[in-house]
Amino acid sequence: MTGTMSGRLAVVGSGPGDRRYLTPEADAALASAQALYGYGPYLDRVPERAGQSRYPSDNREEGARAEAALRHAAQGASVAVVSGGDPGVFAMAAAICEAIESGPESWRALDVSFVPGITAMLAVAARIGAPLGHDFCALSLSDNLKPWELIERRLDAAATAGFVIALYNPISRARPWQLGTAFDRLGRLLPASTPVIFGRAIGRDDERVAVTTLGAARVVAADHYRVATRVIGQDDF
Amino acid sequence: MTGTMSGRLAVVGSGPGDRRYLTPEADAALASAQALYGYGPYLDRVPERAGQSRYPSDNREEGARAEAALRHAAQGASVAVVSGGDPGVFAMAAAICEAIESGPESWRALDVSFVPGITAMLAVAARIGAPLGHDFCALSLSDNLKPWELIERRLDAAATAGFVIALYNPISRARPWQLGTAFDRLGRLLPASTPVIFGRAIGRDDERVAVTTLGAARVVAADHYRVATRVIGQDDF
Repeated sequence: MTGTMSGRLAVVGSGPGDRRYLTPEADAALASAQALYGYGPYLDRVPERAGQSRYPSDNREEGARAEAALRHAAQGASVAVVSGGDPGVFAMAAAICEAIESGPESWRALDVSFVPGITAMLAVAARIGAPLGHDFCALSLSDNLKPWELIERRLDAAATAGFVIALYNPISRARPWQLGTAFDRLGRLLPASTPVIFGRAIGRDDERVAVTTLGAARVVAADHYRVATRVIGQDDF
Repeated sequence: MTGTMSGRLAVVGSGPGDRRYLTPEADAALASAQALYGYGPYLDRVPERAGQSRYPSDNREEGARAEAALRHAAQGASVAVVSGGDPGVFAMAAAICEAIESGPESWRALDVSFVPGITAMLAVAARIGAPLGHDFCALSLSDNLKPWELIERRLDAAATAGFVIALYNPISRARPWQLGTAFDRLGRLLPASTPVIFGRAIGRDDERVAVTTLGAARVVAADHYRVATRVIGQDDF
């Protein structure tokens, strides 16, 4: 149709939250968008700009958010979906790809781009030195999209093969027991002295990093119940 | 001693090379350094600044580079070590930590910081969509620091447990057979249709991304012999 603009959608990694970690590419993608979608606290960290509309949503509504953003872009708008960290690491990129695959044909004609960002394990590791150092894996403890048995199998495989392990989505109100159970599981295969790093909100006012051992990690985890959002466990640094 | 400045050393992740991926924190750390150390091609991508000295070295001299940078910082200078990607992912952070541990006491008094960056697998993944999507691992095919048998054990463990696999240091003149051997190994455990992504130089003029399958990956690898520097292999995207 004459005069119809084709829409654009950028899935933007905003890093750990502080602007010092926001890449120029991500900054430009956020600045040029007409509409911003994302988890409320992530949107709150993006500077307000005149003429830009915002659509915050809850962090358990990824699928609905992806569809709403795509519908908006399909109307010809320039839309950015803000993802904490990197959009491809346990964040919005997968939800957007899945929504496009299962959505109307018109969504596949959109100009969709992905803007990488500093993911939590890199920011936490940088505070410590080189804990990721050698071969490592990233594993989400969320059992929304996969059975807990698969998580246990991956924990066992990673520990047995000597991968450093970065655990994402370790603990929350909706996920109270998974982290402790994962530590118990790892404790069968790794020595109690294995270093464990807890980190959250790197570069922000409420940044918190704790270094402990696998043997003591359950206590720290309890202490951090409401604040620990990322964990790195690894065996030599 | 009165009047002696204490030295500073920043290990800086410069991302995939293009400035659009350089975080403000990394940019500031590079701008404020009196001396820059790093692999020559990484240094070449940092803008020249008046009064700043540069010490390029070969990419197989990480230990010597780390020691030279620490010696320089211990003289009271502000030194930056430039690392491509993220310094903690198969890059300079580990070499710096190891040099500090085994070096003179004075090095442990230095103000050492690590600045995270966009590592290659995140930049390559962003070009494709969400290939890292779920649980994944990062594995270096360099057998300089670990036996090849350990690499094979980790490949088997990652494939068996269903991790997406990002292979770093896949191929070079000094490492001609490892990638093909790794593909053969993965081919015993994964279907030939498993997607494989090759990527290099994301955001630069010589950027190259190829998507193929595990069954065909050996041919592409041969074709990319001099250019493929990063590989992602994964099983559902």
